[in-house]
Amino acid sequence: MEHIITPKVEYVKLLNTYPEKKSALGTLYLTATHLIYVEQTNNNTRTETWVLHHHIMSVEKLPLTASGCPLLICCKTFQLLHLLFQRERDCQDVFQSLLRLSQPVKEEELYAFLYNPHQNEVDRRQGWEFISVANDFSRMGLSNEYWEISHLNKNYEICSTYPSILGLPKNASVAVVTGSAKFRSRGRLPVLSYYHKDTKAALCRCSQPLSGLTSRCVEDEQMLQAISQANSNCPFIYVVDTRPKLNAMANRAAGKGYENEDNYSNIRFQFQGIENIHVMRNSLQKLLEVCSMKSPSMSDYLTGLENSGWLRHIKSVMDAGVFLAKAVCDERASVLVHCSDGWDRTAQVCSLACILLDPYYRTIKGLMVLIEKEWISFGHKFSHRCGHLDTDPKEVSPVFTQFLECVWQLSEQLPCVFEFNERYLIEIHNQVYACQYGNFIGNCQKERLDVRLHEKTFSLWPYLLKNQHLYRNPLYRRSLESTVLRPSTLPLHFKFWCGMYNHYDRGMHPKQSVLDQLLSLTQKQVEGERTMTELQRQLAVADGVLPDPSGPINTPAEQDGPSEKTPTAPVVQSNGSCAPLINGDAEEAGPGAEKCNEKEGADPGATEHDLTSSEDKPVSVETEHSKEEEQESS
Amino acid sequence: MEHIITPKVEYVKLLNTYPEKKSALGTLYLTATHLIYVEQTNNNTRTETWVLHHHIMSVEKLPLTASGCPLLICCKTFQLLHLLFQRERDCQDVFQSLLRLSQPVKEEELYAFLYNPHQNEVDRRQGWEFISVANDFSRMGLSNEYWEISHLNKNYEICSTYPSILGLPKNASVAVVTGSAKFRSRGRLPVLSYYHKDTKAALCRCSQPLSGLTSRCVEDEQMLQAISQANSNCPFIYVVDTRPKLNAMANRAAGKGYENEDNYSNIRFQFQGIENIHVMRNSLQKLLEVCSMKSPSMSDYLTGLENSGWLRHIKSVMDAGVFLAKAVCDERASVLVHCSDGWDRTAQVCSLACILLDPYYRTIKGLMVLIEKEWISFGHKFSHRCGHLDTDPKEVSPVFTQFLECVWQLSEQLPCVFEFNERYLIEIHNQVYACQYGNFIGNCQKERLDVRLHEKTFSLWPYLLKNQHLYRNPLYRRSLESTVLRPSTLPLHFKFWCGMYNHYDRGMHPKQSVLDQLLSLTQKQVEGERTMTELQRQLAVADGVLPDPSGPINTPAEQDGPSEKTPTAPVVQSNGSCAPLINGDAEEAGPGAEKCNEKEGADPGATEHDLTSSEDKPVSVETEHSKEEEQESS
Repeated sequence: MEHIITPKVEYVKLLNTYPEKKSALGTLYLTATHLIYVEQTNNNTRTETWVLHHHIMSVEKLPLTASGCPLLICCKTFQLLHLLFQRERDCQDVFQSLLRLSQPVKEEELYAFLYNPHQNEVDRRQGWEFISVANDFSRMGLSNEYWEISHLNKNYEICSTYPSILGLPKNASVAVVTGSAKFRSRGRLPVLSYYHKDTKAALCRCSQPLSGLTSRCVEDEQMLQAISQANSNCPFIYVVDTRPKLNAMANRAAGKGYENEDNYSNIRFQFQGIENIHVMRNSLQKLLEVCSMKSPSMSDYLTGLENSGWLRHIKSVMDAGVFLAKAVCDERASVLVHCSDGWDRTAQVCSLACILLDPYYRTIKGLMVLIEKEWISFGHKFSHRCGHLDTDPKEVSPVFTQFLECVWQLSEQLPCVFEFNERYLIEIHNQVYACQYGNFIGNCQKERLDVRLHEKTFSLWPYLLKNQHLYRNPLYRRSLESTVLRPSTLPLHFKFWCGMYNHYDRGMHPKQSVLDQLLSLTQKQVEGERTMTELQRQLAVADGVLPDPSGPINTPAEQDGPSEKTPTAPVVQSNGSCAPLINGDAEEAGPGAEKCNEKEGADPGATEHDLTSSEDKPVSVETEHSKEEEQESS
Repeated sequence: MEHIITPKVEYVKLLNTYPEKKSALGTLYLTATHLIYVEQTNNNTRTETWVLHHHIMSVEKLPLTASGCPLLICCKTFQLLHLLFQRERDCQDVFQSLLRLSQPVKEEELYAFLYNPHQNEVDRRQGWEFISVANDFSRMGLSNEYWEISHLNKNYEICSTYPSILGLPKNASVAVVTGSAKFRSRGRLPVLSYYHKDTKAALCRCSQPLSGLTSRCVEDEQMLQAISQANSNCPFIYVVDTRPKLNAMANRAAGKGYENEDNYSNIRFQFQGIENIHVMRNSLQKLLEVCSMKSPSMSDYLTGLENSGWLRHIKSVMDAGVFLAKAVCDERASVLVHCSDGWDRTAQVCSLACILLDPYYRTIKGLMVLIEKEWISFGHKFSHRCGHLDTDPKEVSPVFTQFLECVWQLSEQLPCVFEFNERYLIEIHNQVYACQYGNFIGNCQKERLDVRLHEKTFSLWPYLLKNQHLYRNPLYRRSLESTVLRPSTLPLHFKFWCGMYNHYDRGMHPKQSVLDQLLSLTQKQVEGERTMTELQRQLAVADGVLPDPSGPINTPAEQDGPSEKTPTAPVVQSNGSCAPLINGDAEEAGPGAEKCNEKEGADPGATEHDLTSSEDKPVSVETEHSKEEEQESS
């Protein structure tokens, strides 16, 4: 690759900022996709740290010191690498290479367009069909007496950032639907997010109305009435504006704003006070500053945590989600949720409410469906929010990260209700930023269709499902499945998410080690049960009750995944989630070639790739990337 | 009992301060030992809340409201009860009764002197011999070439607050020992706390020297030299003063102080900056104020947590413990630790270091031994610190609670290294304040001997061991046993201990529910293995390899405790640790009599008692309770 000036630098120190640990000495390699640091240890073992270029958020040359030339690499996965070069020249070369490698400017430079796990085309296509929002609507019971699947938006003409299929109230005419769309920011009209069978209450989402100071729209009012009438269990609907009231009011001056209770019949209007993407971005920045303090006192830490506002924001999202779930479940009321454009806070709050309401979304597959539905398909702008390409930094914000954290906070408070573990959430987070799979590239369904993502890239979901044994929560109790979650949102139940944000202490994930052990425990039990079944069979044969077939019988347990892949296998100390694409010159790349096999244990599915394959060469596709700032004052 | 004015009040509301939960309506009973609140629920089930009188820290009549007369009961176990009486008269009666019942003035009023679990005298005596400090010295390898068990203090003449047996360096003469004792506060001379076989390094403890501004003592200097010479692996010893330097300096004016490095050969002197009992008491008070806020914002909570200083103090104890363990293990250096009197901070830090150094103390039985050795036997003033009797409130301080919390913080960070779970630590904490067993009554060994505690009361340890299945940590890995613990003491690894301090949400212990499930999982596995063994045996019989004995065979697993007592049985929503002593008039006491059987499931061992038994009548014993304040400025 032309961007790599020096593919290999020897005698590079990796400083561990946690004061107790010693620094390592090793060799740094740059491949087309990864930075690889190979540590020389005494006993001839190699410790490798792999960092995907796409994961790099910033590279900074620090002032020269007596011991060398330092380079600080901060990752979007919150990993930190503090390197020390002997020669300034090498540091500068690596610095410049990484600057370029970590900031692709064109979509086709993204890893997903190069990545080829040697799957045949049928499997690749099936992979994309594996998670289906339409199926989820069926699961909810659609179409039914009140709600139907509509194809009005099949050409993205009503709303360009919405999916092609929409859940709409049956009694809303086409005129009402299109009229309502025109009265909403970016045409994001009220549509179904989740239908709660037991109560007939619906969770709906949209963007803010173009109400300005006095405007109104009959079709929009009729649309809300149609939603209300689709639920005979409650005479009113809640309209929840997730923004702080001040922000919503400021929008009125720009011809946007919020619903006037006088104009809509039987709505109960409510603000939720979640801050906007800019506040959230700054808050995360402050949180990470706390995490990167070298020897903070307890007071530094707690004051810093408070000042960052991070947990306050997490709580505000959680509070809103809990409000929605209670409205649907306890009051049997339908709810319409929006923020400004209805793709950030609205996505957070609706998906959280779904998790609280429906145990399906608490399963490994269910969470995929939920992310596909509320985030990918409803146009959460992953490309902009994650900064996949070198675009406006003000568009970047940890909105999806906050959703994952809310799920984690729930799992800490209610440890038995999720099928998945912390590692699953962190893996999804890493994959969102890795762009190894196509799922999180682009800002809406139409954009993905335009760049033909489903033809050129692979889907993440089959890969995650294949490795689900790594993500299983051994504490999961199916018996609790049917209950609606009622978490406490008292401040003392919110914790700092060490496993996500504190990547200073490499490899230190206390919670994870517990899970590993538990997984091995359950594994042992499954094996025990299998042995028992086999023993019982043998006993039956010995008793003459059964004939003696050759070979052991299959028990249902075997369908749960291969038992020989023990989940307690040592985990590679790196982000470990992405396979490398090696620099053209294999000898230069050094450890990359060997690495393929070494990593297989920890990362099956991602390692089978062909360095020379040209089947899926990147294709240049020009797409529109409009830089839009959230128009609201904070 | 003469102190109970009204033994039963109906229509009492129990308010739950957590805003979401509804209040209960029920009947309040006062027995000789417990307050019992019986809630009437719709479906004919009874929910009972039991509060031991000894657990009550404060009773407060709040201002009359429209809905009734409120009474707030705060417990030493951090439980809170907010009751609402219909009649002011009833409230006043209960208030006055509880004031008296919760503050026994004479030792014989303590529960332990009344409590009789119907054990025979042999078992009772054996119970007291079950945990032996002498055996622990043997386990460490004493006596050996350098250290010996000394009986010089057998009549408590050298030091009245020390145990009768002491670990002393062999080369310290009687003159040196007695001389050194005279130069130390309250005669608490340097003695062995823990001997680390692998490094020959010793952990020793004492009180501050009576050095004043210039005094010195040859015997004391020789004593430290004897300790140093007992370890050939290191040319120096650390002398660790756990106090803040300012406090230690203030003590010099009163003729006390700290070691002058110029007078002692080869010592390395070090302050650790742990605050005194008064600072800790105030800090806990502030922490509890945070816990009792009704609707705190995230900012209120985090600021309150920071301002309380609680986690800062916990970290300071942990830092000191880690320093000691590292000195012994990594530097192979012996350490002498003291604070002022050497019975608060010194006990915390030495016991913590023992836990870090020796896996034995991380077992269920090992923790008993450690508490017996460093706390009970070395004269931590449990009676004063816990306020068992109505004595000086300035003597009360959560020193032992802090030690338990440090162990909990370790168990959160290193979840697989402890044989016991969180419930064990909380149970010990509850028992310390319950005074149901004699172990934590009195301030030192001599005092306990004087009141003949071992003749008149029962020991807690056999009871805990009998119920050890409740306290087992399913994550415990024996394979990790041999390692010295190296916890991180970065602030972000310290958490608020919800399970201990937040007793507002009754019955809400997320961590505990995980453990319950895990216990049931391991239990299932044990049962599975047993079934497998039985199946294999039957198979062998069927094959004609084995004869057919009648009945199933015993497997070693059965020794682990009765499997029919499933640990996932519903836990009574109360402190649940103590059996009641019912008011003389059984009919008046109402639910007490029925309760005996009901509670058996949750609290075996504590429920078998005879209300009319007179075998162990309380005996009046006058003992000295000198009110001594820590003489130091903070």
